[in-house]
Amino acid sequence: MERPLTTVAEAAGGDGDGDGEVYRIRPLELDDISKGFSNLLSQLSPSAPLTEDAFRARFGELAALGADHLVLVAEDASTGLLAAAGAVLVERKFIRSCGRVGHVEDVVVDAAARGRGLGERVVRRLVEHARGRGCYKVILNCTPELRAFYAKCGFVEKNVQMGLYF
Amino acid sequence: MERPLTTVAEAAGGDGDGDGEVYRIRPLELDDISKGFSNLLSQLSPSAPLTEDAFRARFGELAALGADHLVLVAEDASTGLLAAAGAVLVERKFIRSCGRVGHVEDVVVDAAARGRGLGERVVRRLVEHARGRGCYKVILNCTPELRAFYAKCGFVEKNVQMGLYF
Repeated sequence: MERPLTTVAEAAGGDGDGDGEVYRIRPLELDDISKGFSNLLSQLSPSAPLTEDAFRARFGELAALGADHLVLVAEDASTGLLAAAGAVLVERKFIRSCGRVGHVEDVVVDAAARGRGLGERVVRRLVEHARGRGCYKVILNCTPELRAFYAKCGFVEKNVQMGLYF
Repeated sequence: MERPLTTVAEAAGGDGDGDGEVYRIRPLELDDISKGFSNLLSQLSPSAPLTEDAFRARFGELAALGADHLVLVAEDASTGLLAAAGAVLVERKFIRSCGRVGHVEDVVVDAAARGRGLGERVVRRLVEHARGRGCYKVILNCTPELRAFYAKCGFVEKNVQMGLYF
């Protein structure tokens, strides 16, 4: 589902942006634990650094879900580090004639790479993945401050999110 | 994870309610397509009736996810029909030290069975399942009118839900 990009030139142009940036958006790989993935996630939710063992174990679990769970990252070709990430989980339902729904989760852009449209590019790729998997909609939860960002990505506000914390 | 209940008396008492009702809350079974499952879902989202083939195919796909996807139903022992249903999907994340989050989805109570606390019983069982699977939180999306119901189930309002419809 994700077209492999073999060169930086292809990556910059192949994404259809033509903005001269050298971010390569691609599925998460096992090597990414050494490319700042843990640091990137810490900007989303403070947490102890991810150990390589834990990362590899979770990577394997998610790989077993195939295209129903996709984590995308944006790699900065100039540094070899990850500048953004995001995930989409495809839920298989019984309602809507056994419909599918994409859940966008854990979208984050490195503090130093913000303001360049990278988050929107990642979200749009996640949405396209969900569409390609036959989802009838994609949903996500966000803080009120992020409404405008997701509206720019094509989302409209719906309902409220409730949570129960253990 | 779901204790098998062998008699109606056990079911009514075993759920800890002691309200004399004979709803047996249990995981969805293949036979449930003949017990009004499709009619129940149609009260949640208007849709063409679920065919037995589509139901069986989706049931098999979800069974492959094991305890990471649980659909519970409440069977009315007096009629043999389903009176409520709800699902919880366990998402495996990288954030929060490879944490897990439970997503409660598609909770519905038959129109004729409302007002008896059955929805709350189903939701609490879904929450307990998520807790047992090691989730650090359970989340759901609902219309503003359902805030009070989910508050009664232990949820607090968080964030906003955005959606993109294909």
